[in-house]
Amino acid sequence: MIVVMKESATQADIESVMQVLRQKGLDPRLTQGVEKTIIGVLGPKEKVRELAVASMNGVEKLVPVSNPFKLASRDFHPDNTTITVGDHVIGGSEPTIIAGPCSVESLEGIIDIAHAVKKSGAQLLRGGAFKPRSSPYSFQGLGEEGLQYLASAREATGLGIVSEVMEPGLVELVAEYVDVLQIGARNMQNFALLKAVGRTNKAVLLKRGFANSMEEWLMSAEYVMSEGNPNVILCERGIRTFETYTRNTLDLNAIPVVQHLSHLPILVDPSHGVGNSRYVTPMARAGIASGAQGVIVEVHPNPAEAWSDGAQSLNLDQFAEMAKQVRQTHTLVQSFSNETSVL
Amino acid sequence: MIVVMKESATQADIESVMQVLRQKGLDPRLTQGVEKTIIGVLGPKEKVRELAVASMNGVEKLVPVSNPFKLASRDFHPDNTTITVGDHVIGGSEPTIIAGPCSVESLEGIIDIAHAVKKSGAQLLRGGAFKPRSSPYSFQGLGEEGLQYLASAREATGLGIVSEVMEPGLVELVAEYVDVLQIGARNMQNFALLKAVGRTNKAVLLKRGFANSMEEWLMSAEYVMSEGNPNVILCERGIRTFETYTRNTLDLNAIPVVQHLSHLPILVDPSHGVGNSRYVTPMARAGIASGAQGVIVEVHPNPAEAWSDGAQSLNLDQFAEMAKQVRQTHTLVQSFSNETSVL
Amino acid sequence: MIVVMKESATQADIESVMQVLRQKGLDPRLTQGVEKTIIGVLGPKEKVRELAVASMNGVEKLVPVSNPFKLASRDFHPDNTTITVGDHVIGGSEPTIIAGPCSVESLEGIIDIAHAVKKSGAQLLRGGAFKPRSSPYSFQGLGEEGLQYLASAREATGLGIVSEVMEPGLVELVAEYVDVLQIGARNMQNFALLKAVGRTNKAVLLKRGFANSMEEWLMSAEYVMSEGNPNVILCERGIRTFETYTRNTLDLNAIPVVQHLSHLPILVDPSHGVGNSRYVTPMARAGIASGAQGVIVEVHPNPAEAWSDGAQSLNLDQFAEMAKQVRQTHTLVQSFSNETSVL
Amino acid sequence: MIVVMKESATQADIESVMQVLRQKGLDPRLTQGVEKTIIGVLGPKEKVRELAVASMNGVEKLVPVSNPFKLASRDFHPDNTTITVGDHVIGGSEPTIIAGPCSVESLEGIIDIAHAVKKSGAQLLRGGAFKPRSSPYSFQGLGEEGLQYLASAREATGLGIVSEVMEPGLVELVAEYVDVLQIGARNMQNFALLKAVGRTNKAVLLKRGFANSMEEWLMSAEYVMSEGNPNVILCERGIRTFETYTRNTLDLNAIPVVQHLSHLPILVDPSHGVGNSRYVTPMARAGIASGAQGVIVEVHPNPAEAWSDGAQSLNLDQFAEMAKQVRQTHTLVQSFSNETSVL
Repeated sequence: MIVVMKESATQADIESVMQVLRQKGLDPRLTQGVEKTIIGVLGPKEKVRELAVASMNGVEKLVPVSNPFKLASRDFHPDNTTITVGDHVIGGSEPTIIAGPCSVESLEGIIDIAHAVKKSGAQLLRGGAFKPRSSPYSFQGLGEEGLQYLASAREATGLGIVSEVMEPGLVELVAEYVDVLQIGARNMQNFALLKAVGRTNKAVLLKRGFANSMEEWLMSAEYVMSEGNPNVILCERGIRTFETYTRNTLDLNAIPVVQHLSHLPILVDPSHGVGNSRYVTPMARAGIASGAQGVIVEVHPNPAEAWSDGAQSLNLDQFAEMAKQVRQTHTLVQSFSNETSVL
Repeated sequence: MIVVMKESATQADIESVMQVLRQKGLDPRLTQGVEKTIIGVLGPKEKVRELAVASMNGVEKLVPVSNPFKLASRDFHPDNTTITVGDHVIGGSEPTIIAGPCSVESLEGIIDIAHAVKKSGAQLLRGGAFKPRSSPYSFQGLGEEGLQYLASAREATGLGIVSEVMEPGLVELVAEYVDVLQIGARNMQNFALLKAVGRTNKAVLLKRGFANSMEEWLMSAEYVMSEGNPNVILCERGIRTFETYTRNTLDLNAIPVVQHLSHLPILVDPSHGVGNSRYVTPMARAGIASGAQGVIVEVHPNPAEAWSDGAQSLNLDQFAEMAKQVRQTHTLVQSFSNETSVL
Repeated sequence: MIVVMKESATQADIESVMQVLRQKGLDPRLTQGVEKTIIGVLGPKEKVRELAVASMNGVEKLVPVSNPFKLASRDFHPDNTTITVGDHVIGGSEPTIIAGPCSVESLEGIIDIAHAVKKSGAQLLRGGAFKPRSSPYSFQGLGEEGLQYLASAREATGLGIVSEVMEPGLVELVAEYVDVLQIGARNMQNFALLKAVGRTNKAVLLKRGFANSMEEWLMSAEYVMSEGNPNVILCERGIRTFETYTRNTLDLNAIPVVQHLSHLPILVDPSHGVGNSRYVTPMARAGIASGAQGVIVEVHPNPAEAWSDGAQSLNLDQFAEMAKQVRQTHTLVQSFSNETSVL
Repeated sequence: MIVVMKESATQADIESVMQVLRQKGLDPRLTQGVEKTIIGVLGPKEKVRELAVASMNGVEKLVPVSNPFKLASRDFHPDNTTITVGDHVIGGSEPTIIAGPCSVESLEGIIDIAHAVKKSGAQLLRGGAFKPRSSPYSFQGLGEEGLQYLASAREATGLGIVSEVMEPGLVELVAEYVDVLQIGARNMQNFALLKAVGRTNKAVLLKRGFANSMEEWLMSAEYVMSEGNPNVILCERGIRTFETYTRNTLDLNAIPVVQHLSHLPILVDPSHGVGNSRYVTPMARAGIASGAQGVIVEVHPNPAEAWSDGAQSLNLDQFAEMAKQVRQTHTLVQSFSNETSVL
């Protein structure tokens, strides 16, 4: 943390701040320039983040300098993490492709979709059983019945299963059925839920909250990891901006930045990111080109008939084409990585 | 919902859309102009919100027209709702003033603060026992012990107690100790939690999520109300914008807009809104002047020593002055309300 | 500027950064802690802001610490600035009330409005002659003819005139007719225009760009002032956020923050801020309560007939009521200022 | 435009709105459903956009339905536009690569860079002669001298020249020297400037304002085109969001969306988009993968010595590698376009 003093700060102001810091057991270091005085504050991160000198006389502002995440940081874990689900290695040499309907609607339906997406190259099946809906009057998902259907689809196809869990009390139940526990964007800072999935040994797909900074996202990964579960997969799914033409603004900048800061694998979700199937394939390609290790997309045999999120679902032909383009783009990006020592 | 067709849409495109809508049991009405064709879609709200025609040929965009909230809407409940906590009526003729420390730190400390804020005019005491922290390494609150201290402070002063609950499994426990259950900004769309507090008979202080629209906020109120608990108090506490000088951007525009849309009482939280005690009093005044029915602020006898959020806490003298200004501003605004028939 | 090094930075990385900084004639100071190394960079502001070490090995990020504005800063000018236009002192003991139609529509019309708003307490008349319109097909204003009508309205009523100038080549022309040159939000970083109005001796009403930080806003004031014109009046008029219910988000937080950073007077424009006349009066009151020294609002005798911006225009009765509420709120806030030594 | 009435609107409210609309020469069409009444308003776009019924009794909100742009719209110009500059076709079969320093610093320097970027595959040279700087104390560019150096670089290499023009009065001067007039992000709604470049026959590179919607961007293109200049090249360069890790948020979603709405060619500027050279190459690849027809990037032989924007400039080796990756990604994306009839 750095304390920046105002140009009008007096020597007494500076001394008061130094004293308060020392009383907190911290080690403040003064740097005085012609125009500006700054105080570097060293000490354990937790203490430093709780500093309350911002409103003292002569203080202009506090500037944090430490990344507050450790287990998720590449500083302490330079190599990429890979996470194995069934036969598939997330973060490995193949791009991860996760596909399926927004909501599980029927046993037959989900098995048919599973066969279809597997044929086109998906390694994991997604499907909502417990659904977060902004309206209490919208369809809330089939619940455990949906999980049973997903498990049957795994049995029929061998695909791993990804499904969302929304509350700590249901983690155990959902974990019985799925291979990857999804934390949705609205729950990215549901800390009780993060701790609960951190106490399982399942892989966790952690979506970025739609108004959360990359730092907060990595801190949420840290919550899961600090409970003992290192298997966190990050997923960018769009942030909120002033633009209304797209449902969200898929923030692909997050891919290279997070890969610089962290060793965890990262995917993109263009379906929620743009909210319109017309733009899903170009954004899936762009995500892979930016360096993402895979995609998660919504697929439905007949989007106009889907119970939820039909507007952003690909049909099966569109999905097959997207999967091909994703694989070819990934192969191209991989071919660059040996030659990019200058970058 | 309105379906806007592209200017290049063919008659066949229009027919296909009409047909899909009719198959869903909806009642589409066509309006064709010189430049534009629009299709008004009437039917039950839930069905209409699930429409999946956005990606059909010839469709430019879908435009929602219904407010999806009912119980929270002023349309069906024209008069202001008031909520009584102990002796105090929230949304009544007096402004509500809720004050207290970010975290409960000790029994003695919380009782001292309670006496002090009561003396300056607060009717309710706030204090965190279970704390949402973006870092797993930060102080997480005293838990149930903190709730016990709050209950003792109520006994000592008669002040009602407001404290946050973060997970469905703890609602029963927290409800035993407090008078108002707070839902924090990060949990505004934690639907399991909303349902859980909706099944209690406690008042619920529902903070606006920092990236949630006013409509989503009222939908979250609807979640609580649709479970049978009508006692929802809204609280604006700042949204995320590009501006970095303030911690958040306290969105006072939300006060008159939400009062136009809904009958529920609404407060402002300038402490979290601006994040710096220097700006809390002017923003508290402004909140009341915009029409808010009260404020909730963080107070600490010695902000530089607070365990959390010291930068935004008022000291006791600052709080006394703020409370006075809030009351006088409220009296002034009340005096206008009889004369504003032109507005 | 502070250079924050990564925890994995080597001693050689640190040395390289120090060397580059010294080569630029700067004076880097090293602070090494257990977890983090930071380099404070001292020197003339202009040089420091051009630093290009962000992508060097071992560098995590650069953190600016200086306010880049000088003439606009309260650090070097502790007392509030007042600006006199005709008989009226902006930033003085009376709140400034500027009112008038979005566009000047006719000679008679503008004179009628001028009389009406003067009667209700306005000291200055606003009206658009050159209009910034997002569509080339929208009404672009009456141009010089509109300015002539405004000048006639001044003659008839004694009100000072505020009107927008949109290009450097027209500054001289507009300055012949008006008392206050308005720089619109879209032109806040039109640097050629800022310099041009800086070379006049007219007061300048500088609106905040809808996506500009407070720092950039004060830098734009600095552009005007550095050309020799100290008479800058700031005006908050709403920023862009994800919220769609209001046209913009009027950011009242900016009032106390900018007053802390700068000595310049500051007004609020609730008409553009919220975009709906229903919410203009409460937001005008809230602006004054937050500390603003006045308001600028759109007024039209028959808003439903206005050539532009009718949705956000007050009619004459609504304006009279708003002006009264603004004055009374201002009187109340003034009464607090002698008692707020604790704040 | 659609007028949505409140559920509590009376028949008289509805009649009043219909009447005002008819008085304006518009043709309102009523649709009444069980829950909601909507009024579709048909008529010339200009008139409809000026509607002022939003604050009438019973009105909930206005919903625009028309795209306000015509010349820029794909509705009236289904085929992609190509723009030829020298030998190079922008929007053609080859990706456009524009490269050069933020500021022109010296004659020798710019000629050296021009040779280098040409060798690596650039077809156009960029360089700032008139620079928009947020501080009046920052280097403002060499002015006409810089333009002369750019012209010399063209003579030496054959590369076309792109440079920014910041005020209407300088359009003629800048147009004498350059092949493409750049409109910077801060000037995207400088309407006088847009009209001035619209009256030249030079290609115009129109950057998206950092807080402007895609619709406003296309309206600004419409300004240029409506003056008679059809040669507009769009350029996405990042928008403002709450995220602070990147300088801006490069919004690649805009690429497929704008290509759906408009026939104009579109490029991406990853240098300004992310603001750190470390992330420029992955974002350039991602831009091309999303469908952009080229990139514009900042290049400097020694970024740490650049007079401005060094942090985001590639060095010559990095640029050569980026250009190669951009070409190969473009080739791959082109190969998909014949197979994407399903999309």
